[in-house]
This record gives sequence, structure tokens and C-alpha cells, in this order.
Amino acid sequence: MLRIIFLLSLLFALSTASVQDFCVANLKRAETPAGYPCIRPIHVKAKDFVFSGLVTPGNTTNIINAAVTPGFVAQFPGLNGQGLSTARLDLAPKGVIPMHTHPGASEVLFVLDGAITAGFVSSANSVYVQTLKPGQVMVFPQGLLHFQINAGKSAAAAFVTFSSASPGLQILDFALFANNLPTELVAATTFLEPAVVKKLKGVLGGTG
Amino acid sequence: MLRIIFLLSLLFALSTASVQDFCVANLKRAETPAGYPCIRPIHVKAKDFVFSGLVTPGNTTNIINAAVTPGFVAQFPGLNGQGLSTARLDLAPKGVIPMHTHPGASEVLFVLDGAITAGFVSSANSVYVQTLKPGQVMVFPQGLLHFQINAGKSAAAAFVTFSSASPGLQILDFALFANNLPTELVAATTFLEPAVVKKLKGVLGGTG
Amino acid sequence: MLRIIFLLSLLFALSTASVQDFCVANLKRAETPAGYPCIRPIHVKAKDFVFSGLVTPGNTTNIINAAVTPGFVAQFPGLNGQGLSTARLDLAPKGVIPMHTHPGASEVLFVLDGAITAGFVSSANSVYVQTLKPGQVMVFPQGLLHFQINAGKSAAAAFVTFSSASPGLQILDFALFANNLPTELVAATTFLEPAVVKKLKGVLGGTG
Amino acid sequence: MLRIIFLLSLLFALSTASVQDFCVANLKRAETPAGYPCIRPIHVKAKDFVFSGLVTPGNTTNIINAAVTPGFVAQFPGLNGQGLSTARLDLAPKGVIPMHTHPGASEVLFVLDGAITAGFVSSANSVYVQTLKPGQVMVFPQGLLHFQINAGKSAAAAFVTFSSASPGLQILDFALFANNLPTELVAATTFLEPAVVKKLKGVLGGTG
Amino acid sequence: MLRIIFLLSLLFALSTASVQDFCVANLKRAETPAGYPCIRPIHVKAKDFVFSGLVTPGNTTNIINAAVTPGFVAQFPGLNGQGLSTARLDLAPKGVIPMHTHPGASEVLFVLDGAITAGFVSSANSVYVQTLKPGQVMVFPQGLLHFQINAGKSAAAAFVTFSSASPGLQILDFALFANNLPTELVAATTFLEPAVVKKLKGVLGGTG
Amino acid sequence: MLRIIFLLSLLFALSTASVQDFCVANLKRAETPAGYPCIRPIHVKAKDFVFSGLVTPGNTTNIINAAVTPGFVAQFPGLNGQGLSTARLDLAPKGVIPMHTHPGASEVLFVLDGAITAGFVSSANSVYVQTLKPGQVMVFPQGLLHFQINAGKSAAAAFVTFSSASPGLQILDFALFANNLPTELVAATTFLEPAVVKKLKGVLGGTG
Repeated sequence: MLRIIFLLSLLFALSTASVQDFCVANLKRAETPAGYPCIRPIHVKAKDFVFSGLVTPGNTTNIINAAVTPGFVAQFPGLNGQGLSTARLDLAPKGVIPMHTHPGASEVLFVLDGAITAGFVSSANSVYVQTLKPGQVMVFPQGLLHFQINAGKSAAAAFVTFSSASPGLQILDFALFANNLPTELVAATTFLEPAVVKKLKGVLGGTG
Repeated sequence: MLRIIFLLSLLFALSTASVQDFCVANLKRAETPAGYPCIRPIHVKAKDFVFSGLVTPGNTTNIINAAVTPGFVAQFPGLNGQGLSTARLDLAPKGVIPMHTHPGASEVLFVLDGAITAGFVSSANSVYVQTLKPGQVMVFPQGLLHFQINAGKSAAAAFVTFSSASPGLQILDFALFANNLPTELVAATTFLEPAVVKKLKGVLGGTG
Repeated sequence: MLRIIFLLSLLFALSTASVQDFCVANLKRAETPAGYPCIRPIHVKAKDFVFSGLVTPGNTTNIINAAVTPGFVAQFPGLNGQGLSTARLDLAPKGVIPMHTHPGASEVLFVLDGAITAGFVSSANSVYVQTLKPGQVMVFPQGLLHFQINAGKSAAAAFVTFSSASPGLQILDFALFANNLPTELVAATTFLEPAVVKKLKGVLGGTG
Repeated sequence: MLRIIFLLSLLFALSTASVQDFCVANLKRAETPAGYPCIRPIHVKAKDFVFSGLVTPGNTTNIINAAVTPGFVAQFPGLNGQGLSTARLDLAPKGVIPMHTHPGASEVLFVLDGAITAGFVSSANSVYVQTLKPGQVMVFPQGLLHFQINAGKSAAAAFVTFSSASPGLQILDFALFANNLPTELVAATTFLEPAVVKKLKGVLGGTG
Repeated sequence: MLRIIFLLSLLFALSTASVQDFCVANLKRAETPAGYPCIRPIHVKAKDFVFSGLVTPGNTTNIINAAVTPGFVAQFPGLNGQGLSTARLDLAPKGVIPMHTHPGASEVLFVLDGAITAGFVSSANSVYVQTLKPGQVMVFPQGLLHFQINAGKSAAAAFVTFSSASPGLQILDFALFANNLPTELVAATTFLEPAVVKKLKGVLGGTG
Repeated sequence: MLRIIFLLSLLFALSTASVQDFCVANLKRAETPAGYPCIRPIHVKAKDFVFSGLVTPGNTTNIINAAVTPGFVAQFPGLNGQGLSTARLDLAPKGVIPMHTHPGASEVLFVLDGAITAGFVSSANSVYVQTLKPGQVMVFPQGLLHFQINAGKSAAAAFVTFSSASPGLQILDFALFANNLPTELVAATTFLEPAVVKKLKGVLGGTG
């Protein structure tokens, strides 16, 4: 009995030292450059470390026949401070995840179903494209333009992870055409004809 | 034509500036604390960014009815410097990935098939256990003891990623019983009886 | 006199630029992944950079005949953001600091008194053990299982530092046996007999 | 005299401790994820810390009426390991630095001459554009599409710095149109008509 | 029309994933070791990324005939979390930026006007001095003593950037003589005569 | 027997995944910004993680009546990549460790014997001084000027650690007076009289 008391007192003394094994995000508080403030450890539950938002395929009934479902820190607070985040890609036949970058993270993609042609372009403008089958993994270095496209006739899906809890996602066409960046500036900085810019702005809901 | 020449000369000038979008590992060279030296960009090919070692399930005909197949930088040189690595878990019925830690990385696990009961223990000795179904994701904070166990009657599998190209893997029983750490030291530092230690050393191939 | 005024105005202008030489923790505020918010510099005093909690040896009248006294950021707020923390080990004769890891930091140990046998096990299951005398230093890489044991007949002590203000401390036996992790899960993931698990749970105050 | 000898011996003892204040790149050796191996300190000269390549304006007699002159680690080895690099922008009247990203760094731009309209687009597709005069500074967050355009009638110039010795530079049009990425893939992933893609490939020297 | 709706719903889904491209500082909130909490993205405006405080030369009518105008995060909140900050140096004829260090960052200096002799001293006590003309760049490694001095007969100016939003600035003479550090401690730790210390304390407003 | 074979094959498979728990420096190879290349794990021995160079007090028979004995990566290769290094301070009666900085690391000091008055000056020129007794710890933020002085009548000693394997050490007087930095530059940048500079250059072995 004394033994237990000794041990428990030791346990108590030692456990006061333990901090920040994890830092589940308090999304109601202002972010910092290193992530969100943590909720208090006493309020953390096992389910805070689990995310179920990628179980169901995303809705691919849209113009790109594809969907990106994010599991970043904003959706999955247990990732805060862990240097990782997740997403699910679904590509119906002919589905395309258009050219995009993640400004804040590298990515690994694991093919779940179907066949996916994926590629990226380096700073030296070299092209690295591969067609992947289920179980294959591809890595996309941070910040480089890349894309994924369904390479088969059936639905394809992939699970992706990023080297940051908050990788960002900049989709090229949305960045250029789905906002109020003036047509003349888009045209001047992309070599596209103003008419082409205006047409795509029309499709994507941009103005200016 | 002149236009093209101007552009190409511009292109040339600019591309000399581009470096280290990626750093595919030269595994024949000595590692550094930040990873391996890079192979020269001119020798890098698209397939260097793809890993096929996780396509086939690992062999689970063993005492733990399970297998861990790593896709770390040593197997997948394209991960070098990208802050990410991968692995595949296969668990036959009754399969167990025993208690282990990754000293150098946090982990996210995505269930591919079956049901998996996974858990970790914090520095404060709190236990976080959940049973996961396909498509669910769980995060395991860096360096903490954790495990995965088949929670169903059919085979289970998972794809895992880590926040480092070189996360390490320390399996508790192998660390304690599969080497020449003297039985008396193991016993003294774990509170296990010497007979228990010796028996497990026998099973796991340890000496001393 | 004018000279002083010029200088002081210069001084004033320049000092407005100086920030965050240090960030003494405000422990009442929620932590972030990078540490605690800082108290305002105007409230910082010299004593905030000093910690006296390691002056007195820890109480070794317990089952392990040893004590760990932490000087982490939670005890020593001046460490916040400095990438360092401290602790003191006291080992009575036969004292043992049991197998443990620091999930978030590497460690250096400096022997103050007595003789200490210390060791760690690598991911490759190699064992690195040495017996140290006063003034010798040993480094323990991040996240690996390690231990310290009194190697002499008199009391031993050591000062240790860590490469993080919040290194964490996971003591193997407490992680396995001092909580409510079900006996069957512990047994399945450690290869220990359920009876052995239950006995140690009894000693260490665990349930399940 | 004895005093000097004592001091010098002290000096010698202490200086053996000093390492890696700097790490001037040995560009002939293979890069690592953290930069190039260092040349030996004894071979380092004051001029290794100076770069003169930005003194002269770049040649703007080209299709964009502009030039980017890099002073990255490949041009300025003293930057290795310092977390900084440099460049000079020159924009003749009507000059444009087209849409581009730096995958590995944030940027600050200081206007030297003329007027520059600069902007970037966020992951949320918001547009941040400003017209800057000499002495004004603008910051561009890492990895986001941005551009600079001459906003006046005379030549403009800027000095820019990056938060990495090797920031990378991906120019959108070159990434899409100046390589062998097949027209159908470019069209599918950008929503541009194949004819538009082919035309720009023609102008920029791409194939496929 | 349906097309646009699909796209917009896609756009909405994706944009919820985007976070922390930037983190404009909320200077009213307590700093953390990684910087200030961010203001909410919805309140961020283009002008938050622009700093105009370096347009006007600093006032050099003072004892050093020089001025340092900082554009650190405290003056330019858009730098928060970007790993960069800025300053402007102005040196009238005979102007001197006295010996100083930046404890938290490396520096690059770009000469705008005039001639500047700049130098630093390494840990090994080696001296690296160069005289720079407009357009030349010099890098100063983190934490080392360095200085800048007008090398010509006309006014000189430079734009400098740092590898941290909060680099700090410790001016040697102010650190030694412009506070209440007792004369005897200054003398004992610098080898300066107490009379010399007292005289400089007098000039610089120090006491003790 | 079969069981053992299964286990050993598992062990073999898993251990191929383990890398870079540690990276003992190969000091014969060129350093990188992240440290030295590693020696091969197979050549690493337990003694590589132990340093005995701090057992013996440094020789204090010199002008400062004190000694700094470094245990940085150059002396203790096992520290490579661990983010920590060590040193020992010895102060005879009246001993002084003069004003100095560590450009690359924060420091914690643990008093072993005697009484030590230690202090640092912040970027805001505030002074933080404390007199410490054995067992007390003080932290010195990165890059700031600090000193230690024997506060008692007997010998004093301290064990210090740094938040980098290669912290650097810039001793103010040596940086100013023990090299060939011209007297006029020293005088101009420190406000010291040329005669004072020349005298100290004489004492410390400087020229110019």
C-alpha cells in the first residue's frame, strides 16, 4: 500500500512536467503563425484525434467531374501543431483536379481506386508526369503547379497528405478568373488575350 | 521569330535561378542531419517521385499476424527534404502492430479496409483509443507510444504518412527484448521479473 | 547636453524596433504549438530568467529510489521560446530512472555526483550503454527509450537539459500500467501475459 | 608579455569552439535539403559576402520589357544557410513581370525607381493589389501567384529579397507553355482551349 | 448557368480549406514565440502588405550622423510569420552605424546611394570588411558584431532586410553604457577602465 | 523455432526502415548548414555519445582568472543534429567570463560550485543581472551580450548548455581588439578613443 502511495506521488510529480504532446486547436481563437491556441488537455478526448470527413466520396457532379475534400486543421483540429494534414480526391470518369499549388506544404498522394495521371512542373519548367494505379504513391514538392486527372474509365479516388496542418490550396483558374482582378492585369501578366480572360471570368464568376 | 529568341533568352536567364524545388536522395552518399545529398536535377526522372512498394500487402504470416511496409526516404528517395514519408499496415484477423513510437515524426493513419482499433498514450499517461472504419483518419502525436489492432474478422489495412522523411520506428518489444541489453538492466528499468524478460528475450532472439 | 538629447532620441527610435529577444511565458494563457504567449516586456524581471527548483535534491524515498525534478517551461517560464529546458535526477543507492522517452526533445546529461549507468536503444534496436562519472556528459537522441541507474554505492545526481522548452516525459511503465488501457490491449500489444499486466497495473495504480 | 601569452592561449582555446557563423557554399559539391556544403572557413574572404550582380540593370529588350536578375545562393554563395536571397527587377515602360510564384520563400520588394503596380492572389482567391512608389515596401506571402507591372511612363526598378537562399521561381506561362506538357493535359487542367494552348506553346517554345 | 452554380459551389467548398497564406499581426494581442496572433482574414486589406515608413530618409542630425529606420513586424504587421523584415539606413557624410548585432536574424544590405564601408567580425575574430557602391549587396551572418560607415563625401543610404520578422537590434555602446549596469561590472567584463566607462555612461545617459 | 524465424524476418524488414535516430558527425567531411555528414550507423559506438572533456576544470591561470571549455560538435561529434551543445565555465576568485554572445543559440547555465553573478542586456538595453548559488539555473536568450563573474571568494564553476550543436562564441574584446580591424574603424564604431583602442589592441594582440 505504501508502495502504491510512493508511486502515485512520483507519478504526480512527474506528470506535472508533461506538456504539449499535442495541441488540439481551439478554432474560436485567433490563429498564430504556428497554428491555433490549444484547448486545455483536460478537455481533449480520443475523438479529437479522429476525422471522419473523408469516409464519403465528394460530390463529383460538377464541371470538373471531381471533388477535393479537405481535412486540414480547420476541419480536423487534432492536426494543429502536428505538421500534417489530409484530403480526399474523387474523380469521376473524365474528372480533373485542375492545375493548383499548395503554397505551404509538400504533398503525398496514395491512389485508392482507379487510375490517375498526375504531374507537376518544376521551377526549371521540367514536367514530371506519371500514371498511377491503386497503392502507388507520388510526392509533389511544395509550392509547384500540379494536377490530377482520371486516367481510366471508372471512378478514381486518392488519399493525400500534406507536410503542414494548413497547406493552403491555390487553384490556378480560380486565382486568375474567379475574382475581381482586372481583365487587363490578368491579360498583361499571363499573355492570354483579354477575350479569353473575359470568357473564363464569365464561366468562373469573376468580375473586372 | 525574334520574339521567341528574346523569350528563350529570358527563359534561360531565369531558369539559372531555380534550385532545389526538390532534392531526390543520393542514398550512396553520407546522410546529414537534414537528409541525404541530392542527385543532380538533370538526372531526376518522373519515376523518382513515385513509389510502388505499398501496392502489395505485406506478408502477415508471422507471430503478430501483421506487417509494416515502410516507404521512408531509404525506400523512396524522392521524399528527401519533403518532410513526409509513408508506410502501409496490413493486419490479418487477430493481427497486431505492437506498441511502438516514431521518434522523429507525427503520423496520420487512413484506414483502407477492415476495422482497426488504434490508440496512443500521452506523457500524462492518458489513453486515447478509437475503433476506425475505412476512410477514417487518426493522428498520432510525435514520439508517443501507440498501437493498431485488427478489430474485425477480416483482413484490415491502412496507409500511413509521417511528418518527416525519416520518422524512425522503435518497437517496444524489440527495443527491450531483441538485443543484448542485459536482463538485469531490462528488469531494473521496467519492473518486469527477470524470468519474464528472459522468456521474451528467448522468443524475440535477444541475448544477455 | 544637446549631444545627449540627440543620442537619447536616437535611442528611443531604435529601441522601438526591438522585440522578442525573449518571451517569458504567461502560463495563464492558452498554449500554442510554438509555446505560451509572452508576458509584456515591461513586466519582465531578472528573476524570471532564474530557476531555483533544482537546488534541492528530489525525494528518493520511493519504490524507484530516485526522483526526477523538472524545470520545463511550466515550472520555469523564462524558457518559453528558447528551445531549452532542464531537470535534475537524483538516484539513491539502487536508484533507477525507469525506461522512458522524451517525445519532443533530445537530452544531454551531466553527472554531478556518484556513478550512473545510462543507456538508450536505437530504432535499429542497438543498445548504447555507458557508465559515467562526475563531469561526464551523455547525449540521448530524441524520442528513444533510455534509462539511468545508480552504478555506485552512494547517492548519484545529474543535471539534464533538453532541446525544447517542453520536451515531454513518457515513462514506459506508467504509460502501460498506470492508466485504464484494458489489460487485453496491453497484453496484445506488448506480448506480456495478462497476469503480468494485471499485477503491474495493481502495483502502479492502473485499472482495466 | 606573459599576460599576452596567457591571453593568446585563451584565445586559441576559445576559437576552436567557434564554428559555422557562416557556411559559404561550395557550389561544386552536391546540395543537401539544407543547402550546399561549406567551403573551409580558412578559404573564406570578405568578398564572398558581397554580390555585385545587381548593380547593372537587367536587359529589358524582350517581349515582357522587363528583367529579373537573381542573386540566389547559386549566384551568391555567401547566402548559403543564411535564410535570405536577393534579386533585382527592371521594368522598362510597359514592362511586366508575369504571374509567378516562389515555391520556397516569402518576398519583400523595395521600389528603387519609377512606379510599380504589384499584387498577389490568396488561397481564398482574394486579390491584393497596390501601386508603389520609390521607397515603399510590399510583402508577398510564400507560394502565392503574384506579379509586378510598370505603372508609370519611365523605367522602374526594385530590389527584392526572399526568406530562403533558394526560393525558386515558377513563371506561370513558362510552366504551362514552355515545355513538353501535352496540349491536352494543359487544356484539361486549365480550362483553356487547345488552340489557345498551342498558340502560346508556339510563342514560348513549348512542344506537345 | 448551372455550370456556374456547380463551379461556385466547388469554389466555396475548396475555399473553406484555405488558411494562413498570411497572418497579419494583431499588435494589440500578446506575442508568442512564433509571432503575433493574426487579424481575421476578412479584415485584411491590400495596404496591410505595404509599408511606407522607409520612403523618407531618417534624421541624421545627431551624434552619429546616421539613422536606422526599422520596418520590423512592430511597424509593418504584414510581415508577421513571413520570416522577413526591413529597415533603412541613412548616413550623412561621416555618418556611422555603430557596432551592433541582430540577435535573431541574418541581414542583407543593398546600397541605394553613396559609398558604404561595412564589416563584421566572426566568432573566430576574423574581420570581413568591404566598401560597397550602389547596387552592391552584402550579407551579415546572424548575431555577429557588424557596422556600416559612410565611405564617401556625400550622403549614403541602404535598404536592409532580415531573416526574421523580429530580428532585434543590440547596439554595443547602448548595451554597455546607456543603462544602469554598474560601472564596475562593465569595466570587469570589458577590460575598459572605469573612468572610460563612466565617461561613456555620461555621454549616453547611463547610470551606475 | 519457426516463431523465432518469423519474428526475425519481421525484425529485419522493420529495421531497414529505421534511419537517423542520430547522426554522429564525420568531422573530416565538409559541414553543411544543418551540420556535418553522419558516420555510418554501423561504426557508431556507445562512447560516441559520451564526452569527457568537461571532467577536469579548465586552466584559470590567465588574465581573466577563468576558463571556458567547450563541448560543441567539434569536440563532441555525437551532438551533431541534436540541437544541443555543452561547455564548462571555471572561475577562480576574481574570475570573469567577459562580455560575449553566442550568435547561434540560447544558453542555460547551472551553477556547480561557488557563487556567480551573471547577467545579460536586452535589445531594449535593459539589464538582467542575478547572483546565483549552486543548483540555480539561468537562461540567456540567443545572441544577447552576457557575462559571468565570480561573486565569492572561492572558485566557482558552471555547466552550460546551448540550443544548437554549434552555438558560436563571440567575445566582445577579442572581436574588437584581437584582430586587424583598423583602430580608426573600431574607434568610429564604438565611441572609444583611439588611444584606448590601441592600448587594448596591444594587450590582446591585435594590430592596425
